[in-house]
Amino acid sequence: MTTVPVSMTDVRELVDGALRAAVGRLDPRTYRVAAYHLGWTDTEGHPRTAPAGKALRPALALLSARAAGAPQESALPGAVAVELVHAFSLLHDDIMDGDRIRRHRPAAWTVYGEPAAILAGDALLALAGEVLLEAPGQGSARAARALAVATRRLIAGQSLDLDFETRQHISLEECQSMAADKTAALLECSCSIGAVLDGAPEPLADALASFGADLGAAFQLVDDLLGIWGDSATTGKPTLSDLRSRKMSLPVVAALNSGTPASELLAELYARPEPPDEDELAETARLVEMGGGKAWAEAEAGRRVECAADHLAEAGLPDAVRNEFLHIADFVTCRDH
Amino acid sequence: MTTVPVSMTDVRELVDGALRAAVGRLDPRTYRVAAYHLGWTDTEGHPRTAPAGKALRPALALLSARAAGAPQESALPGAVAVELVHAFSLLHDDIMDGDRIRRHRPAAWTVYGEPAAILAGDALLALAGEVLLEAPGQGSARAARALAVATRRLIAGQSLDLDFETRQHISLEECQSMAADKTAALLECSCSIGAVLDGAPEPLADALASFGADLGAAFQLVDDLLGIWGDSATTGKPTLSDLRSRKMSLPVVAALNSGTPASELLAELYARPEPPDEDELAETARLVEMGGGKAWAEAEAGRRVECAADHLAEAGLPDAVRNEFLHIADFVTCRDH
Repeated sequence: MTTVPVSMTDVRELVDGALRAAVGRLDPRTYRVAAYHLGWTDTEGHPRTAPAGKALRPALALLSARAAGAPQESALPGAVAVELVHAFSLLHDDIMDGDRIRRHRPAAWTVYGEPAAILAGDALLALAGEVLLEAPGQGSARAARALAVATRRLIAGQSLDLDFETRQHISLEECQSMAADKTAALLECSCSIGAVLDGAPEPLADALASFGADLGAAFQLVDDLLGIWGDSATTGKPTLSDLRSRKMSLPVVAALNSGTPASELLAELYARPEPPDEDELAETARLVEMGGGKAWAEAEAGRRVECAADHLAEAGLPDAVRNEFLHIADFVTCRDH
Repeated sequence: MTTVPVSMTDVRELVDGALRAAVGRLDPRTYRVAAYHLGWTDTEGHPRTAPAGKALRPALALLSARAAGAPQESALPGAVAVELVHAFSLLHDDIMDGDRIRRHRPAAWTVYGEPAAILAGDALLALAGEVLLEAPGQGSARAARALAVATRRLIAGQSLDLDFETRQHISLEECQSMAADKTAALLECSCSIGAVLDGAPEPLADALASFGADLGAAFQLVDDLLGIWGDSATTGKPTLSDLRSRKMSLPVVAALNSGTPASELLAELYARPEPPDEDELAETARLVEMGGGKAWAEAEAGRRVECAADHLAEAGLPDAVRNEFLHIADFVTCRDH
């Protein structure tokens, strides 16, 4: 396993204070839910020494300032804003998807109820805009606009993902487009927001965004692989969880569209009305692998990481910054959690 | 009944196109829910000739541009943005409050399900920021920041309102503070957003916001009076609806805190576990009136409209603009719907 990049471990500390200050503006009831969701408190509202989250998006935001030749601190409002949008989306997604567990803990809505969780998500989204627009300089409006567009895409992706649950056939292209919106749009924004805040020229901001788009695609492929073959102790989700919920994830959709004998059997298992038992789960995983879903997802993840690296090369970044970006890309695509 | 102010009838037409263009950016599934919620389509997605909504917030936004000496069209992005935030809040509030009817129609969540309705609300909120930040000029970032703060307050107000449902005692001050956040914050923003977009000096923007704060307080008082004594045919809600759900509205809380014999009886009825029958509802309404809740709310609404007028006088507006603001204030506080 790749070690956690330095830029990511440093970041959590740098961003944490600003993130706490922002969330601290919320009314006490909404704060309580948000602080729990962010891992700062337990269900009773007592502080907990949380295992720090990945802070992937803030790390990318800070690096993106350095890509534009600005100090990383200048991107702090951007780093906080993308993390707030990420937190908002997880909070609402858990309600919509009926997911009861988030990072080894009960999901916020199961603790505080749906109304409070809906409201806390709303608050985090509004707060993201507020914080970002407080950043000095003219770049803040451009950054806030980019974040709003990314949020609209994130929502479109989740909407398509929900739609998939009601459908029999999904093309691989549709599934990739869903992931581009649901996962990659915010990473795209994270990778460019620091540069945008600094007033960087469009070509640089675009190259960084393109890096983020490919990184996001690779990230989702790896996430989907872990959702089937990941170790529950490190992913924080039950084994084979995506197959348990018959999720239309990328490896599954690839296998379903493979035109192999496995794809028909897989379609049959996925269409069954009753929840799968353990034998069926194991069989489903085997069929996804036989249908080439696993091999394709692994190869495609690798290909997208290479594309991401190409975009960075175009951007003409200082070596140190480029290497840190690549280290992060490596980390998120070789992770086991 | 006061006639609908000219500025409000004109506005719907002017804003409608821009609002439709904005909402048209959403993905087709999210659009469907939003268009239904906004009254543009029926449950099948077919266009309907909707009875136009009040467009109160857009009307105030456009007037506020004229207050700063700018053409009302310059405030269009602001008018669209405040209407989007308003639509977002109603969509999510209906889910949180379990309200199944909105303007004589099934609430969106009862038609499309909670996940789709949560998502559509999220999309409308994100869209508000996106549209506002596209407005030309430096005022847009200041306006978007004010709107984000208003949204945070709106959420805090809804959060406190939800909290009230679990509590026995609520002070009148708390209840007023809740309404100031839940209802008045967005009206405050609507009344100043056009001026802010035009780069108006702080004192003018502040006077307009203060007008909106008092207008909002009066608006909520009238709304609460209608929630008890309004005619269901015009309010679109069942008669005595707020008492049916034992809502802690301003007239009720005023009566509960009146220290009269009625307040004790009222508290007793409100604390009953079983839903009220028609006789109990009539008795509850009588007790709110005997406890002085109705008279206080009527007087307080009148007082807040006068305060609102005083703020306008301070602002030194052109007579035509001031009169239109006052006409709107008169309209929303003398309405029967």
